[in-house]
Amino acid sequence: MPRHGRLKRIFENAQAGLDAVAIFNGDRPDPNFFYVSGYTSGLFENNALFLFPDGRVEVLTNPLEEQAARQKEGYDVHVDSTPGLSERRRLVSSILRGCRRVGLNFAGVSHRDFLSIGSTLGSKGLADVSGALEETRLVKDPDEVAAISRAARLISGVVDEVPGLLRGGMTERDLKAKIDYLIVEHGADSPSFDSIVAFGEHSALPHYSSGETRLRRGDNVLVDIGARYRLYCSDITRTFFFGRPATSQREAYAKVLEAQAKATAAIREGAKGDDVHGVAAKTIDRSRFKGRFIHGLGHSIGVEVHDGPGLSPRSMLTLKRDMVMTVEPGIYLPGEGGVRIEDDVVVTKDSCAILTTSPRELTEV
Amino acid sequence: MPRHGRLKRIFENAQAGLDAVAIFNGDRPDPNFFYVSGYTSGLFENNALFLFPDGRVEVLTNPLEEQAARQKEGYDVHVDSTPGLSERRRLVSSILRGCRRVGLNFAGVSHRDFLSIGSTLGSKGLADVSGALEETRLVKDPDEVAAISRAARLISGVVDEVPGLLRGGMTERDLKAKIDYLIVEHGADSPSFDSIVAFGEHSALPHYSSGETRLRRGDNVLVDIGARYRLYCSDITRTFFFGRPATSQREAYAKVLEAQAKATAAIREGAKGDDVHGVAAKTIDRSRFKGRFIHGLGHSIGVEVHDGPGLSPRSMLTLKRDMVMTVEPGIYLPGEGGVRIEDDVVVTKDSCAILTTSPRELTEV
Repeated sequence: MPRHGRLKRIFENAQAGLDAVAIFNGDRPDPNFFYVSGYTSGLFENNALFLFPDGRVEVLTNPLEEQAARQKEGYDVHVDSTPGLSERRRLVSSILRGCRRVGLNFAGVSHRDFLSIGSTLGSKGLADVSGALEETRLVKDPDEVAAISRAARLISGVVDEVPGLLRGGMTERDLKAKIDYLIVEHGADSPSFDSIVAFGEHSALPHYSSGETRLRRGDNVLVDIGARYRLYCSDITRTFFFGRPATSQREAYAKVLEAQAKATAAIREGAKGDDVHGVAAKTIDRSRFKGRFIHGLGHSIGVEVHDGPGLSPRSMLTLKRDMVMTVEPGIYLPGEGGVRIEDDVVVTKDSCAILTTSPRELTEV
Repeated sequence: MPRHGRLKRIFENAQAGLDAVAIFNGDRPDPNFFYVSGYTSGLFENNALFLFPDGRVEVLTNPLEEQAARQKEGYDVHVDSTPGLSERRRLVSSILRGCRRVGLNFAGVSHRDFLSIGSTLGSKGLADVSGALEETRLVKDPDEVAAISRAARLISGVVDEVPGLLRGGMTERDLKAKIDYLIVEHGADSPSFDSIVAFGEHSALPHYSSGETRLRRGDNVLVDIGARYRLYCSDITRTFFFGRPATSQREAYAKVLEAQAKATAAIREGAKGDDVHGVAAKTIDRSRFKGRFIHGLGHSIGVEVHDGPGLSPRSMLTLKRDMVMTVEPGIYLPGEGGVRIEDDVVVTKDSCAILTTSPRELTEV
């Protein structure tokens, strides 16, 4: 059971001596609830998951989620059908009876929930397992790599349709609506984040989303989109040209492509996240585009689009096999436009495998 | 300036003696960052907002978000362009110089961020303003009511197209993709939550999303969808019948409609959230569908789809003018199907105004 493998690794990565790990969906849902349980449908609002070193998993749910909670076999499901907190507190205390040290995701519970959980658990010692969860999630098991690969192929199929969708005068919003439709039609559960569609000078803003701007001859078209498939995310960026690109855009494109190729070639087990970023950054900074690459090279992807540390100047990560990262250098020319090219890769012993399949050569529509 | 009005109300609703309120986007973005600032584009990852009783607003941002942070006039923008935390901590300390008591949203920061903020702010007293923010957000100002009304009209226009989209053999996923496309095409920024499209017996599960099930004659079609327009959310549910409904479904529909009408009629300034729920619950529980209404009657909507307390058996809310609530009774018959009808209303002195505009009578396609 892969689920059991994850659970075991969480306890291995956490400090020794934990009797249980509790994951609460409180003020916000904790993605780890879904990561560990493997539940793919249901909201599980205010539900909690309890993990034990012997592999036991207990779920605290309510009547609205009970059917969803029972979709997995082998989990003990406790249903709290009362309003108010007293029965819930009784159930939590009973599930954790005899546990002295309990791990909690300090990054996944709000401070308000933490105070409430603390008052429920009374004298038990609470230890932060946010680092252990992050470390566990960084290295994907085969089921996870398969789901991300599928999500990456799905989104590549959508990207490949984008050049055929471009029409002069269409708005960014029009194109975004069509892309979001295709993401689900191609078989994804949903976009994995708010799709970015930027025309012309908007493409120089890495966090721009989309608006009413209309496509004109000579614009570049930057699409940064992702698909979610069975919880798992993909993330891809392509920059197309609607009409003949200006020389600076053509040169920027070639430089980004070169930076991406060199950085991708540097990825392997044991490589450092800051070094890999540096390979791309140096390639750009030694050109006329010095200083125009203004963000980190990539991030881990998994059940979240930003699934933990990645490739950046301040990264302290050493890459391991089966980590999945985006590689997305860019050059941004304010008032003119930007070029970004992004693919998803899984780290192997001696290199990496690229999961997204869209062509990368300059495409003029 | 409406923004200034919100800021003033936050300090009024918070405990006395606060010198500042700080809102941090840390492990998770805090919707209050957008609510208070009024920023409608940009991600603002790891940015922070500082509010002062004299109306001053200071923003701590980074080069990636600087342009977005400057979209609003009158805010002091501080840009941290260094990696690492030391410059950021220096800036936070400098912005809050002289403040002794600082309000923080305990429900919006993770416990991990809370510990880090605490170490930055050192000896300052930190007070929880989650309740004050919730109370402020519950009562909408005219700009907010206008944005929600627009979002409600947009989503009603989409719902009205649903009967025309139904085809025997289509999957829930097909219909969901078409609906999500229409939401953006009609002018919304995005769906306000993962659209629910449930055919036949799936409609008996209130938290079901959508899947590969195909539409057959005799199925009911439940769509629970929303639009986001300039940060603000709408939320509507309609249940259509594809072919002639069974008698039990027809009776359930009439009962839900009756419950919704009676509950809506009970909404006015001064009414209690639990009482309004009770009006709908009693209407259903006195029929053959006793016990089949298994969730709260409604919730507040605003910058989040669930924007604070609402109408439920355990609600302690007293309604005020300009609160915006969903009213969504349902009857769920396991293995058969469910009926839910949901509209968005704004509370007035003597009653409420319904913001969603779709017809409610039983529709057979």
